[in-house]
Amino acid sequence: MFVPREECFVAVLKVKDEIMQSGREYLRQQGFTEILPVILSPITDPLHHDTFDGTVSFYGHPYQLTKSMILHKQIALRTLPRIYCFSPNVRMESAERAGLGRYLAEFVQLDLEARDASREEIMQIGEGLVVHVIATVINRCPAELSRLGRELSVPKTPFPRITFCEAKERFGQTLDDSLSASLSAPTWLIDFPRSVREFYDREDPQRPDILLDMDLIYPEGYGEALSGGEREHTLLRILRRLEQDALDKDKFFQYLAVAAAGIPPSAGFGIGIERLTRFVCGLDQIEQARLFPKTPGKIGAV
Amino acid sequence: MFVPREECFVAVLKVKDEIMQSGREYLRQQGFTEILPVILSPITDPLHHDTFDGTVSFYGHPYQLTKSMILHKQIALRTLPRIYCFSPNVRMESAERAGLGRYLAEFVQLDLEARDASREEIMQIGEGLVVHVIATVINRCPAELSRLGRELSVPKTPFPRITFCEAKERFGQTLDDSLSASLSAPTWLIDFPRSVREFYDREDPQRPDILLDMDLIYPEGYGEALSGGEREHTLLRILRRLEQDALDKDKFFQYLAVAAAGIPPSAGFGIGIERLTRFVCGLDQIEQARLFPKTPGKIGAV
Repeated sequence: MFVPREECFVAVLKVKDEIMQSGREYLRQQGFTEILPVILSPITDPLHHDTFDGTVSFYGHPYQLTKSMILHKQIALRTLPRIYCFSPNVRMESAERAGLGRYLAEFVQLDLEARDASREEIMQIGEGLVVHVIATVINRCPAELSRLGRELSVPKTPFPRITFCEAKERFGQTLDDSLSASLSAPTWLIDFPRSVREFYDREDPQRPDILLDMDLIYPEGYGEALSGGEREHTLLRILRRLEQDALDKDKFFQYLAVAAAGIPPSAGFGIGIERLTRFVCGLDQIEQARLFPKTPGKIGAV
Repeated sequence: MFVPREECFVAVLKVKDEIMQSGREYLRQQGFTEILPVILSPITDPLHHDTFDGTVSFYGHPYQLTKSMILHKQIALRTLPRIYCFSPNVRMESAERAGLGRYLAEFVQLDLEARDASREEIMQIGEGLVVHVIATVINRCPAELSRLGRELSVPKTPFPRITFCEAKERFGQTLDDSLSASLSAPTWLIDFPRSVREFYDREDPQRPDILLDMDLIYPEGYGEALSGGEREHTLLRILRRLEQDALDKDKFFQYLAVAAAGIPPSAGFGIGIERLTRFVCGLDQIEQARLFPKTPGKIGAV
């Protein structure tokens, strides 16, 4: 459905406010503490796919804009057992991705991590979060959903699961899009091979090359909702994974120094606020999900 | 009081979480909608004092890291009547300022703006916010405050006021520090002269060169809490003020284009979360108020 900006944008922004509020409510109930975001750091998520680096001179030294707070989340768990953050990320994706309708060059993730959690436990938290957010929006924003012509239902738990291998057999290379288009409810995509994911997602000790990670995929073609998993946390394993990914260890000096001092085992995920808003509101383009959207490759918008 | 990091840091982080939560509670009650932060833009607050620019190549074009969301807040009011944002700001202050204990090179402001509000109305909201946050922390965090050895009381409203002129007569050039050290309760500092503030704070039509703006000053030497005021909003007035401040109009092209289309009258303020946490917890240094603090001029911390 095309949503005329002037008529429906206020409704979208109200729903987004409730999404953020209800997300916090749920996480506070689950014992999570909110921490402040990190914008600049010598270290950030290297990401597995190519983006242009956001580099800033910090008193003469090259600092990176946060692509995700994964490394800082792990370090934060030395102090607190369960943390979350509304984390602004800058990822200058290639301009071709803009056409897919779900990429912004700047977006906000609700990013969380729990000490000593397993993938199973963090998937339960993910399901609880999505269910609570959708139920709350249905309950508190009936006028806005009606104005947007969006019929939503609370998904049943546990969400269905499909392994990366199964999905690839059924849907081929563009599995994210085809899988999402085939679904009528949010579905977990699990067990990614090491070659397609970042170094910090934990390899299954029982199944070499298979990671203990997951994405949540929205139905109706809305694509990826969240991405997460258990994490590598010992210095030896982290070094091994950096080597396997041919990443420059020097670029992660500060992270490795903390890992040497001790990072706890954990699992967590990040869920994009604009994508969640797009799905909940049933929007064509992700630019319709926020004020001041930045489209990959497009210059000049405030 | 010196707070040993290992003993008291968890208490500080819990109090900060409650500060953010209770701040939101109050603003939602007052009809404000939360919007997402802006990290990169062709335009940002020029600030009146010198900082190093955080410049990033955004697909080949020089974008600025947000120093404050003032210009975006004004534009957002075209869509929503009352907005707030937890806005991460990067201000690379000179290294000498680090010693003052209240500057971070990266911090978060709770930044809000209300369409058609007067300075009086927005000062009432500021008082209501500070009172609600302090009362909530006293109520929900007694163990944390006790651990930090902090005795807090809810300030009485209305807060006292002093004009910039009066304060300068009594305290001379370092009026922020001396005024704060002399106070036993939060106090408004109002009516700044045009020469010491930014172009967007509204000049009083009745008193040329005096602005309809204000700072809130913490007692006990904790310094500035928040800064705000009524805003210039007509294209003519904005152009005049840019000229008076010898600012390059071309740098504000996108903002001026929106102002030409119409920006509503408004007032608002931004209150620093780390400074509020420092005051509420009674901390020596602002670095003790968050994970991953960035001290001006100090390189290498994650």
